[in-house]
Amino acid sequence: MGNIKKKRNERIGGLIKILSDQPNKVITLNYFCELFAAAKSTISEDIVIAKSILEDFQLGTIQTITGALGGVKYTPVVNKEKTIEFLQDICNKLGKEDRLIPGGFIYMTDIIYSPNIATKIGEILATQFYHKDINYVLTMETKGIPIALMTGKALGVPLVIVRRDSRVTEGSTVSINYVSGSSNRIQNMSLSRRALPKDSRVLIIDDFMKAGGTAKGMMDLMDEFECKVEGIGVLVATDQPEIKVVDNYVSLLHLREVDIKNKKIHIAPNLNLK
Amino acid sequence: MGNIKKKRNERIGGLIKILSDQPNKVITLNYFCELFAAAKSTISEDIVIAKSILEDFQLGTIQTITGALGGVKYTPVVNKEKTIEFLQDICNKLGKEDRLIPGGFIYMTDIIYSPNIATKIGEILATQFYHKDINYVLTMETKGIPIALMTGKALGVPLVIVRRDSRVTEGSTVSINYVSGSSNRIQNMSLSRRALPKDSRVLIIDDFMKAGGTAKGMMDLMDEFECKVEGIGVLVATDQPEIKVVDNYVSLLHLREVDIKNKKIHIAPNLNLK
Repeated sequence: MGNIKKKRNERIGGLIKILSDQPNKVITLNYFCELFAAAKSTISEDIVIAKSILEDFQLGTIQTITGALGGVKYTPVVNKEKTIEFLQDICNKLGKEDRLIPGGFIYMTDIIYSPNIATKIGEILATQFYHKDINYVLTMETKGIPIALMTGKALGVPLVIVRRDSRVTEGSTVSINYVSGSSNRIQNMSLSRRALPKDSRVLIIDDFMKAGGTAKGMMDLMDEFECKVEGIGVLVATDQPEIKVVDNYVSLLHLREVDIKNKKIHIAPNLNLK
Repeated sequence: MGNIKKKRNERIGGLIKILSDQPNKVITLNYFCELFAAAKSTISEDIVIAKSILEDFQLGTIQTITGALGGVKYTPVVNKEKTIEFLQDICNKLGKEDRLIPGGFIYMTDIIYSPNIATKIGEILATQFYHKDINYVLTMETKGIPIALMTGKALGVPLVIVRRDSRVTEGSTVSINYVSGSSNRIQNMSLSRRALPKDSRVLIIDDFMKAGGTAKGMMDLMDEFECKVEGIGVLVATDQPEIKVVDNYVSLLHLREVDIKNKKIHIAPNLNLK
């Protein structure tokens, strides 16, 4: 293990692995100095090289944070070209007619539950919000959980899951009613009182948005927790209804139309992403 | 990007990042030859170095697969020493008296929804089952999803989520009744018919096991899908009842006793893990 002098190869390999395992977590230079038994100046040089390797292969970037809480952190930024290419590939999969489910729904759990795809979606969603200082990712069970977890991983923040019913195993909860835009029914969502401290800056993530009722419910819930919603990101938003009950959401994909009669799904990447 | 000759530093850094982003996925040597504009012999040398770096820092290992479908893959093996250290740390957190919830439950969502903790739990669970040839990880919504997703990520296989109610957006479903061991109530679980192909080898993952009723339900459900359950892994299993309705489960932590009166939680790592 550490504390024995390492070659540059070894330091760079270890540094990239350790940083990228914990995105957006600041790790001190001292940690690497000790692990590699190397001087700070050496580690600084290694970091410059590691950063250029990651950027060269478009695998994210490394940032140096100066000051008392200083150190270095890895951010899995996805560039626009790779984003569009990846999203187009998802659209090609989702657009197949055998994904059409009675009711005009699209079967997509095999895609969004795939860990590697969920990771990439999470990194793309996170890329839209790195400039906000997010503390928590919030989602509503169930289907959005994998991509929300991976968004939290990329941002380096915890996930909070809102439940449909208040579960006995999470202590006292705050519950609110909301109107699900698609079904127009009054439903319930609840969250453990201790899940979020007051004044947290929250990013709402979900797999699908139609009218936005669920997202609006989560915003109302955040009011109860005295938290601030800094953004809303979804994988798919439908073009209809055009006016949602929430503003300022980012969707990676636009579901233009589901033509049940001719079994056609029109879905396309959002070309206005970062 | 690629196709321009790279230095060894750069190749090793890129190789480690690319392999570890997709655990247990075999990547061909040709892919790296093209990306780095290097000969196969050079890449083979790089792989030996990358492997020794990862093993040296106890960050997993790299395996070379020979034959027509050959290539190289990264496996996030967690060694026993690191496993016990990590689990002991979780126990120290979970054992605090303010985690006790009326009903004798323990508040643990802040821990198991943390992406970095969930990743490590997933890698430790995966380490118990790398020797089995798993095709899918199966979990029951909701709280087990983050650790199940990360177990799937480590194993390089997709996640399948069993639902409590049959949702309209997943097409035709198979539903079964099961008896929740803890509440002794008959409940329902359902899964989309297209979620799993016949003859899949499945690993069941969950956050908590008391009597094992939920796991047993998932086993019965797998019978309906003509799939084979290769293992059951849970984060926490209670010591009582001693005899569960399923055999051969692996739990990372043992919940010995919850002493409500004195507000004591006795929880300890399983010392018999791989």
